[in-house]
Amino acid sequence: MSKFMSEAMKEAEKALKENEVPIGAVIVLDGKIISRGHNKREFLQNAIKHAEIIAIEKACKKLGSWRLENAEIYVTLEPCPMCAGAIANARIKKVIYATEDTSCPDNLCEAIFNSNRLNHKVLFEKEECEDAKVILQQFFKAKRKQP
Amino acid sequence: MSKFMSEAMKEAEKALKENEVPIGAVIVLDGKIISRGHNKREFLQNAIKHAEIIAIEKACKKLGSWRLENAEIYVTLEPCPMCAGAIANARIKKVIYATEDTSCPDNLCEAIFNSNRLNHKVLFEKEECEDAKVILQQFFKAKRKQP
Repeated sequence: MSKFMSEAMKEAEKALKENEVPIGAVIVLDGKIISRGHNKREFLQNAIKHAEIIAIEKACKKLGSWRLENAEIYVTLEPCPMCAGAIANARIKKVIYATEDTSCPDNLCEAIFNSNRLNHKVLFEKEECEDAKVILQQFFKAKRKQP
Repeated sequence: MSKFMSEAMKEAEKALKENEVPIGAVIVLDGKIISRGHNKREFLQNAIKHAEIIAIEKACKKLGSWRLENAEIYVTLEPCPMCAGAIANARIKKVIYATEDTSCPDNLCEAIFNSNRLNHKVLFEKEECEDAKVILQQFFKAKRKQP
């Protein structure tokens, strides 16, 4: 596993400890992590606060710009349409994801990244990481067992 | 124009005064406006802060829940993929938009609303409002004239 995906996994593990769907992300610019995020939807009771959104907002704040050109985002799960749209809106160069979102079978994510609407296409690459899949499976298995 | 779209237009006018792309939104529950938002991307230098996102975050805070079931969102422009995804993630029941996003010709918005990934489909309806189109055209015309 690349060191950046390993850092995204650490974020997913933080989400798991907080009883959130375990997804994590880090944003990398010039070979350095500039922001991190993990899912906080339940804790914050906020539909927007996915790992990628939190990482993007932190990166914008750090750089003082809504444009994150040349940045890459490592994320443990294929982004949902909201997060894919946010990644494109922030002009992020590339997404590296560890496992597919099996609930999203209609290639929406790639359609958003390849859309011409912003004159910006996002590169999209898989770095297979079994741990990212296993942590999600364990989370949902445990949830189903709850009364 | 419906009273709720008129309130969304007031939000778009606020954005215009702040030199932002003039887009506004209001969220309605049980016949009452529970939150409002206008685009603040430039002021906040934050790629996420579109009108719809701001309105959704405020509504979640107000209700103490990430689920905005039965809520409707009135928005002056067809949502971008990020905002369409956020609307679906928040389980909003219906979107009423005033004008099409001509930069988004590939029906991404409807694909996101009709996706099965959340077992939730968002209703999507146009309430034609010429003012919403005109304010955007004026904004971009003025921008192009700037040196």
